[in-house]
Amino acid sequence: MNAEIISVGTEILMGNIVNTNATYLAQECAKLGLFVYHQVVVGDNEERLTQVMEQALSRSDVILLTGGLGPTEDDLTKEVAAKVAGKLLKRDERTKERIKSYFKARGVKEITQNNWKQAEIIEDAIVLDNDNGTAPGFIVETSDNKRIVLLPGPPMEMNPMFQEKVIPYLKKLQPDVLVTRMVKICGMGESAVETKIKDLIQQQTNPTIATYAKLGEVHLRVTASAKNEDAAKKLLKPVVKELKNRFDNKIYTTEEEVSLESCVLKLLVKNELSLVTAESCTGGLLAGSIVNVPGASEAFKEGFITYSNKAKRKFLDVNKSTLKKYGAVSEKTAKEMARGAAIGSDADISIAITGVAGPDGGTEEKPIGLVYIGCYIKEKTIVKEYRFNGSREKIRQQAVIAALDLLRRSILDEYGEK
Amino acid sequence: MNAEIISVGTEILMGNIVNTNATYLAQECAKLGLFVYHQVVVGDNEERLTQVMEQALSRSDVILLTGGLGPTEDDLTKEVAAKVAGKLLKRDERTKERIKSYFKARGVKEITQNNWKQAEIIEDAIVLDNDNGTAPGFIVETSDNKRIVLLPGPPMEMNPMFQEKVIPYLKKLQPDVLVTRMVKICGMGESAVETKIKDLIQQQTNPTIATYAKLGEVHLRVTASAKNEDAAKKLLKPVVKELKNRFDNKIYTTEEEVSLESCVLKLLVKNELSLVTAESCTGGLLAGSIVNVPGASEAFKEGFITYSNKAKRKFLDVNKSTLKKYGAVSEKTAKEMARGAAIGSDADISIAITGVAGPDGGTEEKPIGLVYIGCYIKEKTIVKEYRFNGSREKIRQQAVIAALDLLRRSILDEYGEK
Repeated sequence: MNAEIISVGTEILMGNIVNTNATYLAQECAKLGLFVYHQVVVGDNEERLTQVMEQALSRSDVILLTGGLGPTEDDLTKEVAAKVAGKLLKRDERTKERIKSYFKARGVKEITQNNWKQAEIIEDAIVLDNDNGTAPGFIVETSDNKRIVLLPGPPMEMNPMFQEKVIPYLKKLQPDVLVTRMVKICGMGESAVETKIKDLIQQQTNPTIATYAKLGEVHLRVTASAKNEDAAKKLLKPVVKELKNRFDNKIYTTEEEVSLESCVLKLLVKNELSLVTAESCTGGLLAGSIVNVPGASEAFKEGFITYSNKAKRKFLDVNKSTLKKYGAVSEKTAKEMARGAAIGSDADISIAITGVAGPDGGTEEKPIGLVYIGCYIKEKTIVKEYRFNGSREKIRQQAVIAALDLLRRSILDEYGEK
Repeated sequence: MNAEIISVGTEILMGNIVNTNATYLAQECAKLGLFVYHQVVVGDNEERLTQVMEQALSRSDVILLTGGLGPTEDDLTKEVAAKVAGKLLKRDERTKERIKSYFKARGVKEITQNNWKQAEIIEDAIVLDNDNGTAPGFIVETSDNKRIVLLPGPPMEMNPMFQEKVIPYLKKLQPDVLVTRMVKICGMGESAVETKIKDLIQQQTNPTIATYAKLGEVHLRVTASAKNEDAAKKLLKPVVKELKNRFDNKIYTTEEEVSLESCVLKLLVKNELSLVTAESCTGGLLAGSIVNVPGASEAFKEGFITYSNKAKRKFLDVNKSTLKKYGAVSEKTAKEMARGAAIGSDADISIAITGVAGPDGGTEEKPIGLVYIGCYIKEKTIVKEYRFNGSREKIRQQAVIAALDLLRRSILDEYGEK
C-alpha cells in the first residue's frame, strides 16, 4: 500500500510556516509500512485542490490531507473531497453538540454562525471527533477501495487525532504488524555510522534500517514486519543486539521517546548525583536543555554562566595566571572551571564548556569551532577537545550535545550501568 | 509569473528531514512577486521525477528544483531535467577544474571517480557555480520559454547560490522591482494584530501586507512593487509609518535581519549598560539566546541559574521568608531575584525569571504557565506576570521572548530611543 500526503494552505505555499505536518505524517507512514512517493502542497483553491486530489487518487491507495477544514469560506477541503468521492454533505447533530460543548467548556458564550459549517459531515464517512478543536476529521472510503483521510491543519489537533483514530484504522488495513526500535547514537558522524553498518543496510529486508541524521546525533530506525507483535519483536532482537555490539556505549537509548538530556538526568537521579554547570560560549544553553526535562530539579540545583574572564575567576575560582598563560579557551581553563564549579557549589559532578563560537575571535591557533569541555567526577577532571563546524548557533548547539554525551559516558564509566 | 517548487529526496518523503528548502524558496518567491500554487516532494526515481517535472512545466513558468545533484548513482535530477528539456549532457572542463580546486582547498588528495559526474553540464544551460560544495546548479531555458532552475539540496549550498545567482536572474524576468520591509511585533497575539490592521489588509493592493505568526511574536511583511527601487520605497513609507502609529513600541524593528535579542543587545551597548540574568524555570535559555548574538560580551558578563530555592538565596540574596510566605513563583521572589542579581554582580540592569513550566507542579492558585519576570533598572524593579500556554518547552521559550521584550521596553522607557 502507498500513501500520498497533501497539505492544504496558502500559508505553506507562501512560506509563512514550515510544513511540519508533512514531516510528521511521513514519519508515521514509514512506521506503518506505508510507502510515500509523493507529497504535495496546494492552496485553498477549488480547481487546483480538485486536480491534486484526483491525481492522488489515481496513483495512491491512501490520501492524507491536512488543513482547510476550518469555519471560514476559504476552507474547502471537505467540500472538494466529498465532490471527488461522489458523496454529499449533511448536517450532523452529534457533531454540532460536540462543537457546542467544546466552546462551552472554554467559556465561549456566543458561537458565531460560521462555526456550524464544521457540523456538516461527509455521508458514509467515518467521523473523527476533534478532542482539541472544533473541526472534525474524516475517513472516506471510495468506491474503488481508496481512502481519503481528512485532518485539521493545526498540529495540536492533527497529531492526537492521527495517533488515536487514524493509526488504529490504518493498522487494520495492513495485514502485518510493524514494530520499530529507535537506536540513538551520539559522538559519531552520519557517514561513519553508515560505513560501520553498510553490510547490514545492504542485506536488509526485514527488519529494515533507516538512518536519520540530527545535529550531533545519528538515529537508526529498525523496523520489523510480522504477523503479530511478538513475532516482529523476535525479528528485531538480533538486529538491535548486533547494533549494540557494533556501537557499544555510543548508543544512549533504543527508545523513541528518550532524549539525550533525559537519559543524562535519569543516570544522575539513579546514582543520586547532583550536577552543576559552568558555561562560557554556550551561555546557558546546556543548563537550559537539562531543565527542559521534567523533574530536573532532582539533580540540578544551580548553574553558572561565566562569559567574562572576571566571572570565571569570581565564581569558578579559575586562576588569573591560567587565563593569562593559556587563555579562556584552553584545556587548563576548562579543567579549572569544572573543578571550581563542583567545589564551589558542593555538587557531585560538574560540566564546564569554553570555546570559540565565532563569527569573530578565531585565530590560527584557536580557530572558530574549537571547544573544550571539562567534566569533574569522583574528584577527577576529564577534559576533551572538540572542533565543530557551522554557524555560531550550530557550534554552540553541538557543544551542548557533546557536553551531555561526555556527562553520560563519564557517569557510566565511573558508576557503571546501574 | 508563477513558480513551482519541487524537492527531490527520499529523506523528505520518509520524514527523515523537515523540508525547510521549500519554505525558504516559498518565502523568496513571495518576496520576488512570484506566485506559488504547487509544491511537490518526490524521490530519486526516474519515472516519477519525469512525471512531476513534466506536470510542473505544463502549469508553471518557473520550476525550482532542489536535491539530487550529487555524485551518487541515485542522483538523477540533472539527467531527468536535461531529458525533459530535450537537452544533452556534456563534460565541462571549467567545472571539473572548480571541483578539483574545491577539494584541494580542503586538503583532499584523492578525488573519487564518482565526483566527475558533477562536472557534466546541461548544454545551453546557465551553470551556477557552487561556492560551498561540488555540485553546480543550472538554469535551463526551454523552447516554450519556461525556466527550470536546478539547485543542490544542502541548505548551506542552496541558499547562497539562490541569493547570489538565481535572484538576480529572476529579477530580470520580472518587469517590476519589489521592495519589502519586515515589521516585527512582540507582546501581541496574531489575531489581535490582525484585528488592528484588518482595514489595511482588506484595502491592500500595493503594498501588500502578509502576516507571519512566530512563537511570542508576529511579523508583518510589507511588499511594494514599482518600476524602480525608489518608487517602491516611496510606496512603502506611508504604510510602514501607519503600522508604527498603530503598534508604537510593540514594534521592535522594521529590518528583516534584526532579531529580538540582537535588538536588546544593541540597546544595551548603545547606552553602555551591563546586563546580568537570573533564571529559574528557563534554566539558562535567556542567557543562551543573548549569547547567540555576536559581540554579546560587550554587555553580558555573567548569569545565574538558580533552579533551587537554596541557590536563589545563596546567589541572589532572596529572603528565606519571601520564599516561605509567597513561594518561589511569585511577584515578590522575582523582584528580589532581579535586585539581588544586579547588586551582587554590580550590573546596570538585571532580568529575572521564575515560573511554573509544568508538566507537574501546577496548582489552582499557581497554574502551569504562570511566570513572573522582574527587571531591575535605574534602582527600580518592575515585575510582570504572564500566563503562557503549551508544553514545558513552549512555556519556557515564551518566557524567554517575554523577558527580552520587557528588557527592551524598560531600556527604552528609562533611557529613551538614543
